[in-house]
Amino acid sequence: MDSQKGGSSVRQAVWQKIAETLQQDIRSGLFDNGGRLPTEVVLAARFSVNRHTVRQAIGHLADLGIVVSHQGRGVFLRDAGLEYRVGPRTRLTDNLVRQGRRPEREEVRVETIPAPRAVGRALRLPFSASVQWLSYRTRVEGRLTCLNDHYFPTERFPAIGEDFLRLGSITEALRCAGIEDYLRASTRINARLCSAAEAKQLDLSRGRPLIVTAGVDCDLLGRPISVNQARMVADSVTLTVERDE
Amino acid sequence: MDSQKGGSSVRQAVWQKIAETLQQDIRSGLFDNGGRLPTEVVLAARFSVNRHTVRQAIGHLADLGIVVSHQGRGVFLRDAGLEYRVGPRTRLTDNLVRQGRRPEREEVRVETIPAPRAVGRALRLPFSASVQWLSYRTRVEGRLTCLNDHYFPTERFPAIGEDFLRLGSITEALRCAGIEDYLRASTRINARLCSAAEAKQLDLSRGRPLIVTAGVDCDLLGRPISVNQARMVADSVTLTVERDE
Repeated sequence: MDSQKGGSSVRQAVWQKIAETLQQDIRSGLFDNGGRLPTEVVLAARFSVNRHTVRQAIGHLADLGIVVSHQGRGVFLRDAGLEYRVGPRTRLTDNLVRQGRRPEREEVRVETIPAPRAVGRALRLPFSASVQWLSYRTRVEGRLTCLNDHYFPTERFPAIGEDFLRLGSITEALRCAGIEDYLRASTRINARLCSAAEAKQLDLSRGRPLIVTAGVDCDLLGRPISVNQARMVADSVTLTVERDE
Repeated sequence: MDSQKGGSSVRQAVWQKIAETLQQDIRSGLFDNGGRLPTEVVLAARFSVNRHTVRQAIGHLADLGIVVSHQGRGVFLRDAGLEYRVGPRTRLTDNLVRQGRRPEREEVRVETIPAPRAVGRALRLPFSASVQWLSYRTRVEGRLTCLNDHYFPTERFPAIGEDFLRLGSITEALRCAGIEDYLRASTRINARLCSAAEAKQLDLSRGRPLIVTAGVDCDLLGRPISVNQARMVADSVTLTVERDE
């Protein structure tokens, strides 16, 4: 996974040093979030190097997911992007809608499958019980952001898939099954690199990071009703945990 | 960031397919968490390929942070590793101690600096106010896991650095300043690739992902007392958010 860039080792040291300095500037808040970096010309003068070297440094920061280059408009700090709130009322889609975003679901699939072992355990199902597996891809304002998987016990929610396809909302589909309200009991958060298949599904380059969340939702009696996994493009997502929701 | 592996494109397709199949097996819980994968010989027989091809597939999964190869013992699902709980009582170190882990702090530094802009905003400080910056590296059972930065307003906590160095605990140092208890008001969670400097500090390969958290702690009157940033090796850390803590 060693992706060396640039020419001679001396040259490399220079752009690396510039990249580190810019990163420190960013970390110390010199450029506001969403703010624009100085132009290549200005940075070249500041570091007494040519624009090519500046471009290497910025290319490196872009690779790290720290800045984003917008053709013709300049280089910007990465937009913290979509905010997903993680908490007792975690409903990813509602979340986005409340922020004025318009999430779209693509490649929606509903299948009946034997519960994956970890899912069965979390849902406290007997061995080899069946689950309804709802999966789709989320696009927000044109950008692919997330692969979503939801698992519901078939015995309790035999029609959840149909209702979801008809109503386009998990909250609504659960209401049809008599669940007026539910709470997120726990969420586990990891990060890892995307696989080749995930890169393709999310239109990502190889080697980009994903944030992977796995949550368990419970009804108001504390019985688990679903396991929800999301694989999010780390570059465009921030998770937030607030004390009072 | 394209790190192609393997020989001809035909060969590549085979190990990629095997890697995807193993990933599906893992996702469906065929191997328990922390469990061992079948041996190379068994996998080679299952997929009707030679061991070299199996090794390529497993190498790819290792690159993604999904499995870990232990010399002589076999290939294991990545240990979910250290669990960091994110919530109102977020104290990373206490957290680990409660799990029976022994975190060690290295390269502890205390500095007085002008508040980085984002820190000043979060702490509601006047422009160019000074902060006490505590930074260190956390090693858990020999493994480098985290770079930590804490920022406290100098005006309210002039001696926090000294007290921290003397007592070895932020909770204890805050107690010296009259803060008997405090709560995590909010945490933001991102993931990105490590920079060259971070790779060096954390003894990581280039291109590995970090989980970056930024939290604001408040006293019981709701006044912000510190900003806390952690850059964690994603491969060995899981964040958990529980409903009731």
